[in-house]
Amino acid sequence: MNQNKIKIGLFGFGCVGKGLYSVLEKTRGLKVELVKICIKDREKNRTIENKCFAYDKDEILNHPDINVIVEAIDDADAAFDIVSAALKKGKPVVTANKKMVAERLGDLLSMQEEYGTPLLYEAACCASIPLIRNFEEYYDNDLIHSFRGIMNGTTNFILTDIFRNNKTYNEALGYAQLHGYTESDPVLDIEGYDSRYKLSILLTHAFGLTVDPSRIFNLGIQRINDFDIKFAQEKRGKIKLIARAQKLSTGHIAAFVMPELVYEGDELYAVEGVDNGIITENHFADRNIFIGKGAGALPTAAALLSDLSALTYNYKYEYKKKRQANGSSISDDFFADVYIRSDREPEIRPTEFEELYDRYESRRYKYITGKIRFSKLISSDWIKKESVNAVLLNDKINN
Amino acid sequence: MNQNKIKIGLFGFGCVGKGLYSVLEKTRGLKVELVKICIKDREKNRTIENKCFAYDKDEILNHPDINVIVEAIDDADAAFDIVSAALKKGKPVVTANKKMVAERLGDLLSMQEEYGTPLLYEAACCASIPLIRNFEEYYDNDLIHSFRGIMNGTTNFILTDIFRNNKTYNEALGYAQLHGYTESDPVLDIEGYDSRYKLSILLTHAFGLTVDPSRIFNLGIQRINDFDIKFAQEKRGKIKLIARAQKLSTGHIAAFVMPELVYEGDELYAVEGVDNGIITENHFADRNIFIGKGAGALPTAAALLSDLSALTYNYKYEYKKKRQANGSSISDDFFADVYIRSDREPEIRPTEFEELYDRYESRRYKYITGKIRFSKLISSDWIKKESVNAVLLNDKINN
Repeated sequence: MNQNKIKIGLFGFGCVGKGLYSVLEKTRGLKVELVKICIKDREKNRTIENKCFAYDKDEILNHPDINVIVEAIDDADAAFDIVSAALKKGKPVVTANKKMVAERLGDLLSMQEEYGTPLLYEAACCASIPLIRNFEEYYDNDLIHSFRGIMNGTTNFILTDIFRNNKTYNEALGYAQLHGYTESDPVLDIEGYDSRYKLSILLTHAFGLTVDPSRIFNLGIQRINDFDIKFAQEKRGKIKLIARAQKLSTGHIAAFVMPELVYEGDELYAVEGVDNGIITENHFADRNIFIGKGAGALPTAAALLSDLSALTYNYKYEYKKKRQANGSSISDDFFADVYIRSDREPEIRPTEFEELYDRYESRRYKYITGKIRFSKLISSDWIKKESVNAVLLNDKINN
Repeated sequence: MNQNKIKIGLFGFGCVGKGLYSVLEKTRGLKVELVKICIKDREKNRTIENKCFAYDKDEILNHPDINVIVEAIDDADAAFDIVSAALKKGKPVVTANKKMVAERLGDLLSMQEEYGTPLLYEAACCASIPLIRNFEEYYDNDLIHSFRGIMNGTTNFILTDIFRNNKTYNEALGYAQLHGYTESDPVLDIEGYDSRYKLSILLTHAFGLTVDPSRIFNLGIQRINDFDIKFAQEKRGKIKLIARAQKLSTGHIAAFVMPELVYEGDELYAVEGVDNGIITENHFADRNIFIGKGAGALPTAAALLSDLSALTYNYKYEYKKKRQANGSSISDDFFADVYIRSDREPEIRPTEFEELYDRYESRRYKYITGKIRFSKLISSDWIKKESVNAVLLNDKINN
């Protein structure tokens, strides 16, 4: 963009779109004009003037005045079509759509390269916490060992409620649903898919990997029962849903999402409610911690705005780590200390563990704690069963 | 810079310079060549080849191959001369020299503008924590209400030692000095000048103010005695040295450095040892917390490296907030809750307080807690006396 003035065509006027609208109204620093908003539903009552709206995507994509597209719709496939069309036309795109970015990153990378058009998506990873830009710019030349964090506010809200207020999982989930802290369909959050999207995007910027999100193991919080909660409390810990990536001694990257027992002294222990928190470990910068709001209309809009601002000086992601990735890839070939709890059935054999720490059995539940090869854990029959839960016992994984 | 390859002329080969040298040796991602290092002392034993060194600053400033200057010397005045000469010659400069940047920011701003040469100094503010870039880029268009943090690792190390290990101030200071956690002259750290430099630089990037650091009130940790420590412990808090800036309802900015009683639940409570931590509060992004190593050879070098990397795409600070500052300035016209402890003398009159909370008197000490007008506090006779200590009692200041 050679002109300073950004003229936006916005797709979608839901939570994120409205957030951006109200943020733009209060922003003095950046010259931004919202030219048109493309929406699907003509009938819905809207809070702003009708002449702002368009119903045909081409009206926006081909609008001669519009020089930046902000994509803020729910449907990832439709979003991809819009983003592709814009990139091909040379119109820079800003988006918060983590599912679309994570699932189509390969294509999006090629298009950015082919058409030389920037695509920015800071808002897709923990909203107001500036992660992507920092991975791109600040740790660009630092050697990143690992990052690890709470990347989903909904599950953290539920887990906080459980441990702070002695609730059951279902009580806390119900409370979160009643008070609007969940999506209408909570599965993406609760089962860890949302965290997996973010992890997958960050893997590109931290380690240069382009990974199909389905390649990443995710276990959410949906199987946590009273027994698991009691176990965690007895160990003086809290369960948090953690997404992590860590460089192994082979040069490959361990990456997964699962519940983890977090103890006092760990910075993530104090990240509560809807907050997100990420810890990066780097060779030179050592340890950095980022905490903030990872969702919500205004925090998401703040991230969109920061990307819009960056477009005024022709900023684009360099994806430099991709050139440094040296053939490394996701690996499940490492060991982790885990707690595996099951009903009486299925039978989990102690011989599947490299090392056993504890075994416990009561009339209703049993559990094993021990060191297990991660590839064995995720390929087992029992991990797929709803009657089994797994919790990472500590932060130490190794190969 | 139109070329991609950065060719550095480095001034200084102390802690920071050596850190950068060893970091560059391990960095694959960035094409950087260290052409020459300018040092003062020919006699000192050096760990690298002699042909790398120069002893005349003009040899480096006029070197046809060198296209970036990294300034890493102690002497702020000599540093300013080098930086000025480089900016005038159109050679971008990266520096970690907080004293120089803070004290000469007005001149440095003019020179950057006049000669169109970038000056980057992320390393000057809490080393590895990406504060300046985030203030410039990420919260650029968000409305910042306040930031507040532990910006000095030495004092935080001493205070952590006091509260964790029940040491006296002198014991903890002695331990820090013995183990190399202080500068040879610890006054800059201990008395809060180092934090004040950082605060002063961040005021420019967060609020657009150019402030002479001497305009900012600073009280360090040097007056903390056993009585103060016991007081803090009885209140179940810890004393931390905090630098802060907050927008007042008048639009002006409260900014000062002083010891503060920090309680559990405050994110800064858990920032211990040599770590730094900063909390920003923003209208849209809400609350963001950054924690990391604020000093040390490698964390500082990591920040220098990030700035070097940014120069490859012609990045420079835009100082956009300066254009938005609208005549706001530093103000001491607000109220703060404080603890004021003194020996029997001098006499501190309760009438100087807007509101009294507590009064205590023993044979050796007395203290008052209450709400006081900040301008009254800092202009009082008694605050200048070594026998008086002041601690901010909570995070709430208002006007």
